[in-house]
Amino acid sequence: MKIVPSSVQLLLERLRATYTAEEARLRLSRQAERAPERTLRSAREASSANISSLWRQLGAAGVEIAGVEQELADQRTLEQAERYSGNIEAMVGTVKLPVGVVGPLLVNGLNAKGLYYAPMATTEAALVASYARGAMVATRSGGVTTALLNEGVLRTPGFKFSGLIDAGLFVEWVARNADELKAAAEATTRHGKLIALEPIIDNDIVFLLCRYTTGDASGQNMVTIATDALCAKIEQDCPVKPLHWFIEANFSGDKKASYIGLITGRGRKVSASTVIPEALVEKHLHVSIDRMLAYGEMANLGALLSGQMGAQGHYANGLAAFYIATGQDAACVSESAVGFTRMERREDGLFVSVTLPNILVGSVGGGTGMPSQSAALSLLGLKGAGHGAALAEVTAALCLCGEISIMAAIAAGHFSSAHEKLARKR
Amino acid sequence: MKIVPSSVQLLLERLRATYTAEEARLRLSRQAERAPERTLRSAREASSANISSLWRQLGAAGVEIAGVEQELADQRTLEQAERYSGNIEAMVGTVKLPVGVVGPLLVNGLNAKGLYYAPMATTEAALVASYARGAMVATRSGGVTTALLNEGVLRTPGFKFSGLIDAGLFVEWVARNADELKAAAEATTRHGKLIALEPIIDNDIVFLLCRYTTGDASGQNMVTIATDALCAKIEQDCPVKPLHWFIEANFSGDKKASYIGLITGRGRKVSASTVIPEALVEKHLHVSIDRMLAYGEMANLGALLSGQMGAQGHYANGLAAFYIATGQDAACVSESAVGFTRMERREDGLFVSVTLPNILVGSVGGGTGMPSQSAALSLLGLKGAGHGAALAEVTAALCLCGEISIMAAIAAGHFSSAHEKLARKR
Amino acid sequence: MKIVPSSVQLLLERLRATYTAEEARLRLSRQAERAPERTLRSAREASSANISSLWRQLGAAGVEIAGVEQELADQRTLEQAERYSGNIEAMVGTVKLPVGVVGPLLVNGLNAKGLYYAPMATTEAALVASYARGAMVATRSGGVTTALLNEGVLRTPGFKFSGLIDAGLFVEWVARNADELKAAAEATTRHGKLIALEPIIDNDIVFLLCRYTTGDASGQNMVTIATDALCAKIEQDCPVKPLHWFIEANFSGDKKASYIGLITGRGRKVSASTVIPEALVEKHLHVSIDRMLAYGEMANLGALLSGQMGAQGHYANGLAAFYIATGQDAACVSESAVGFTRMERREDGLFVSVTLPNILVGSVGGGTGMPSQSAALSLLGLKGAGHGAALAEVTAALCLCGEISIMAAIAAGHFSSAHEKLARKR
Amino acid sequence: MKIVPSSVQLLLERLRATYTAEEARLRLSRQAERAPERTLRSAREASSANISSLWRQLGAAGVEIAGVEQELADQRTLEQAERYSGNIEAMVGTVKLPVGVVGPLLVNGLNAKGLYYAPMATTEAALVASYARGAMVATRSGGVTTALLNEGVLRTPGFKFSGLIDAGLFVEWVARNADELKAAAEATTRHGKLIALEPIIDNDIVFLLCRYTTGDASGQNMVTIATDALCAKIEQDCPVKPLHWFIEANFSGDKKASYIGLITGRGRKVSASTVIPEALVEKHLHVSIDRMLAYGEMANLGALLSGQMGAQGHYANGLAAFYIATGQDAACVSESAVGFTRMERREDGLFVSVTLPNILVGSVGGGTGMPSQSAALSLLGLKGAGHGAALAEVTAALCLCGEISIMAAIAAGHFSSAHEKLARKR
Repeated sequence: MKIVPSSVQLLLERLRATYTAEEARLRLSRQAERAPERTLRSAREASSANISSLWRQLGAAGVEIAGVEQELADQRTLEQAERYSGNIEAMVGTVKLPVGVVGPLLVNGLNAKGLYYAPMATTEAALVASYARGAMVATRSGGVTTALLNEGVLRTPGFKFSGLIDAGLFVEWVARNADELKAAAEATTRHGKLIALEPIIDNDIVFLLCRYTTGDASGQNMVTIATDALCAKIEQDCPVKPLHWFIEANFSGDKKASYIGLITGRGRKVSASTVIPEALVEKHLHVSIDRMLAYGEMANLGALLSGQMGAQGHYANGLAAFYIATGQDAACVSESAVGFTRMERREDGLFVSVTLPNILVGSVGGGTGMPSQSAALSLLGLKGAGHGAALAEVTAALCLCGEISIMAAIAAGHFSSAHEKLARKR
Repeated sequence: MKIVPSSVQLLLERLRATYTAEEARLRLSRQAERAPERTLRSAREASSANISSLWRQLGAAGVEIAGVEQELADQRTLEQAERYSGNIEAMVGTVKLPVGVVGPLLVNGLNAKGLYYAPMATTEAALVASYARGAMVATRSGGVTTALLNEGVLRTPGFKFSGLIDAGLFVEWVARNADELKAAAEATTRHGKLIALEPIIDNDIVFLLCRYTTGDASGQNMVTIATDALCAKIEQDCPVKPLHWFIEANFSGDKKASYIGLITGRGRKVSASTVIPEALVEKHLHVSIDRMLAYGEMANLGALLSGQMGAQGHYANGLAAFYIATGQDAACVSESAVGFTRMERREDGLFVSVTLPNILVGSVGGGTGMPSQSAALSLLGLKGAGHGAALAEVTAALCLCGEISIMAAIAAGHFSSAHEKLARKR
Repeated sequence: MKIVPSSVQLLLERLRATYTAEEARLRLSRQAERAPERTLRSAREASSANISSLWRQLGAAGVEIAGVEQELADQRTLEQAERYSGNIEAMVGTVKLPVGVVGPLLVNGLNAKGLYYAPMATTEAALVASYARGAMVATRSGGVTTALLNEGVLRTPGFKFSGLIDAGLFVEWVARNADELKAAAEATTRHGKLIALEPIIDNDIVFLLCRYTTGDASGQNMVTIATDALCAKIEQDCPVKPLHWFIEANFSGDKKASYIGLITGRGRKVSASTVIPEALVEKHLHVSIDRMLAYGEMANLGALLSGQMGAQGHYANGLAAFYIATGQDAACVSESAVGFTRMERREDGLFVSVTLPNILVGSVGGGTGMPSQSAALSLLGLKGAGHGAALAEVTAALCLCGEISIMAAIAAGHFSSAHEKLARKR
Repeated sequence: MKIVPSSVQLLLERLRATYTAEEARLRLSRQAERAPERTLRSAREASSANISSLWRQLGAAGVEIAGVEQELADQRTLEQAERYSGNIEAMVGTVKLPVGVVGPLLVNGLNAKGLYYAPMATTEAALVASYARGAMVATRSGGVTTALLNEGVLRTPGFKFSGLIDAGLFVEWVARNADELKAAAEATTRHGKLIALEPIIDNDIVFLLCRYTTGDASGQNMVTIATDALCAKIEQDCPVKPLHWFIEANFSGDKKASYIGLITGRGRKVSASTVIPEALVEKHLHVSIDRMLAYGEMANLGALLSGQMGAQGHYANGLAAFYIATGQDAACVSESAVGFTRMERREDGLFVSVTLPNILVGSVGGGTGMPSQSAALSLLGLKGAGHGAALAEVTAALCLCGEISIMAAIAAGHFSSAHEKLARKR
């Protein structure tokens, strides 16, 4: 019996069949002798002239660009080039993702209220159909109840001192001067408010957890700039001098799943729920409530035993498609796709809820001003100032629809066949 | 001194200023009286006719579509509509993301080898510029060394029995019949291979961890279909009958960060590294090696104390931009953005490495056949069969570039100013 | 190549060699026919009479008690029986753990100050010797710097409502009435203070994170009783009625490792550090600073990739031995053994620090009044009121000694031989 | 509104009221001037002469030993001193923990079978009574079903190479020579078997996960010594030379909660369950099944949202008390107190199960030979060779009893009052 796992043995066999050790070593060694190529002269500003110039450089570098250039740098893209400036560098064109619409989705929220048509950009077959099914069932059940429960984007500078005592004196100074620091941070922004300032000490290192509300924007840049000002104020006024400090010491959960995000929230925390009458469960989801609950029990166990953060099915699918379509930062899917999906039998049917503590969306700023993203937000009816909180609630409502549908598909035994039908026909 | 956190108090104050309790209750209650709207008659197949029909329905439903329709359903999109069929439902158009190019990036890998121009789709200003800086420095340092270390996509059906003893007998049957189960699974696919089958018992529930290699595809559908066949074989032949079973019991880490992914890997595991000579660190990154290491120490501490999985800076930024541009599943950023970034002082400079255990990319399948995504893969030189492993290595190399650049920016104190300069000009 | 892991196959083979499936099923089935034995008539109060009575019952039940009774219920134990009443039920005697002493350990702390002789109860050979070596080196280096950084024991009742809106109104009522709730909680205790009250909502469920300082006691019972009063006050006065509520909803990290504990602390958070001159590292630890740092790098990586909470070597060893010797709750090792050990090269030698966010110790209450535990606290010089904080600092200092020694043993390659020498002679 | 948390402010106020910054700095600074005290001349062998000698040294060092010495170094301890040699260093006496008995506990296990009287050593009032209540109910319900599901103690050496390619070649050599390495490891032990050898690469670092079965012992020293031999064999024969390597690179989950332990198991994995008829739930636990399930729902949610590993109530209480009483390593509570407790309504009552993947117990070795620990094992009927697996099953059965009782107490609203009654009378 081999005690080394079969997957390791397989990989090694494949490698051995391809290279000798010497060949592998050669492939992996630094190419110091090779003169490093000239880097693309990157265009800071997107414009049709700059785009064309980059393609010329790519062609000159030997990249095969026939057919490629016109697909990325199509006519319309070149015409709208200026509108992308400020959001990208070294732009060579645009990539087009198909957008499907889910709706009408009835939302009964503190901030969102009414019927929504949600745009989703994805290339995964069956995804839009699945969310649409969830939305249809939720809407026919009387809609999705949503509430924004908490709010605050973190930025966490770190300060290193010569020892524990200076770290402690620094914390004391910060606590005494919290009002001045708040004023310094907020002077950089019209919409950002510093709502909590929490020091965390590990011996000679102090992390300052700076938590902000960010108005209608998702606010990642806003909090960076505000925190920079806060740190500059510290640097200027605080008599306890750090050996060094950094604007972000990797404690904020920015662009990654983290327990600080799961527990305290980052961005907007929203809960969304509905109760689906038993008849609708059976008619539209083709499954019984009991079987849904049986699946829920096993899925929760699987989540716990495999070391998920929280327990949910596939928030990431809905989040990625919705973030991309509406000009949000798709990288934030990494931190947003964390939370908890629950099911319970109620007198009036099947209760399902989702709670996402880290939704990072804005109805202004970021990519919301790009031509098609802006159009997608208009289609949703949540473009521009005043819609940030509603946008977060619709995001959660959409995730709820996705959870309802995927759990039903798995519980009913249709998960594989749905994918097979919709995806394999390609 | 208030013992309730200020953020909670603030939110409550804002709510009180907006609604009475009764108004809030009304907003959140189910709208049973409201006749649920007619759902969009969704078009399964994307075609210009179907797209137009959906816009008519949206208009009839009262959505303001003037200006919106033409931005999403532009001429070119309508012309190419058929090419999107099979990847989306209820398609109303396309959303366009600007694509920047990073390169040339010199990669010395087991699978990727040479100079690459990497397309990145993002609306976050400064992102492409930052990755480009990292790529320039890495290339001038002799390139990025990469190796595919492991491979295997998980799908994890779960089986519930009447008790522990049946669970045990089931596991025994599975172990004895592993070869037949493997054959059943592999009969569904030309490229997928079942390389490990691991049962995990929790009393009366058995999870079967089915791990596959998936050829050049990312393989998420492939493993679902293969596992469905494996389960059908079990259902047919196994004398120990489960009370119920599900094709996926939430143990696979699919579309979410999880410790099973961090520890055992899901998809392709790749490590990428380089050594940057001290002179290049100082010239191009404007910072000393010591300061980079000081940042690394603090960032690692921050990662651990905030409960990250692994410890890294912003893989998610590079992954999202690269996945979107090249037709990968952007939702997989949630599971891929996990790993470990390390720095060390070496005799010949600053060693930096990244290891990502969960890269999910394919050079075929998924969204790689969409018009502009296909073009982006061509630009990269990794389109079609035979390039899956190289694509994974370039993905990791790109993440390395992003880590080098962001750590340098933070260490040098330029993080905030770079964002301010590039993003605030909008 | 077998795709089922070898460990699973081995276990199955062993089972098959032992039982048929039918025999296994028989062994595991419920013994409904077997009349359940009469339960031990448990003695609530420990006394020599009760102890003897229990032994008679055990003998009557067929337990072989010859030689056993006198080893557990020895003369001295019987004499002191009354002193154990109030800490145990169904007492049949005492178990004796050997106690070793580590010291003198020089502590320079905010609360602990001077030379300490720390009692450690363990049956693991080499453990006391290892901690003693660390203490010797730390003391010769000028002592261990310690500071209590934070304090607060959590108890987290949970409340379930009929819906999200009631959950929200409940939170609002709690925030408005926080002062009254604090008063109700604090009325139950002379020493406990409610210092934070934080609501966390998941749709229709509200967790109330109640955080207390607990004077010189570890305070686990104190916070339970205070929170019970707080909940009773809510039940009496709050107009928003929960469907049901529970005094502890498993959110507190009580008796288990948890990220809430790692991030926010539970009990007392203490950091301890020292700088060991290079000459002492080499003379007493038989290793170079470089090798210590090389080990630290690898150990940190191992911690992250294996999914530890925090990163440390073996806090649990020191904590268990010290908690048992001094009458603390040994079960709290599960939550206390979490934190972060750091090393750095400094001008004056090797900096090593530990930070433990969840130390649960008391110089009064719990098991501190037991005869030998009380003596052990006296030996340490930290018995009775006024010593809780100092006790926590000594706990952390001791963990630091253990980390120094084990890391040096592993780095020097002595880890295995030390265990072999000290343990194998048995 | 103060944005700094109240708990931080309170601590700072208290500090300010005690010290000036200068005084604090003085307290925390290194006492270089103070001549380090002479260290206790530690006695390696426990004997009455050595014990007395240590007390003389303590007295000479100024420790107040009147009353203390005789409590720790009582007559019986001095008489039995030799029996402790080999398990402790610098022994000054014994600490006595009261032991209560829980039973009879009916176990229907693959390995344990029959009625058990389980000794538990604790100073926490109500704990034994609570476990006894659970045992009584489980026994009257037909007993606890248990099965050992998996087995294997990890030790994880780490090897650092000059680069990725050497790391890869090293893994290849290890995979090819696995049989020889297994032989080298197993040559050091009669009972240990190397059952899996899994390499994990992070760029230039390779962790070797060595998993052993350890016979009837818990086996922590056994696997260290075996792995040392395995590494020596590598050092001698492997042509790919590491820059450095360490016998344990902190990847094993040894003495700490970790996801590698939760997911893959460390030590013995056992599941235990029972079904309690509704009448018994109500009669003995004073609560309804519905309320138990309502509590289970909330407790699971609390576990997930607070970032536990697994989800359970208080395994640590039972484990610590049982480990201490039976001579196990109490420090292992840190890793053992991880797992999953489930409840379900079944036709015949309330199903409750626990699954613990990391039970580390032995019926031989460790502290099992100490006088009173040996007696406690005899009382249990599981002393000596042949009982390791049964001991693990009884451990899990006991944890099940504890979960039943605490969940019932909390669900019924008796949790606080039980503690108040039993603990406050002190």
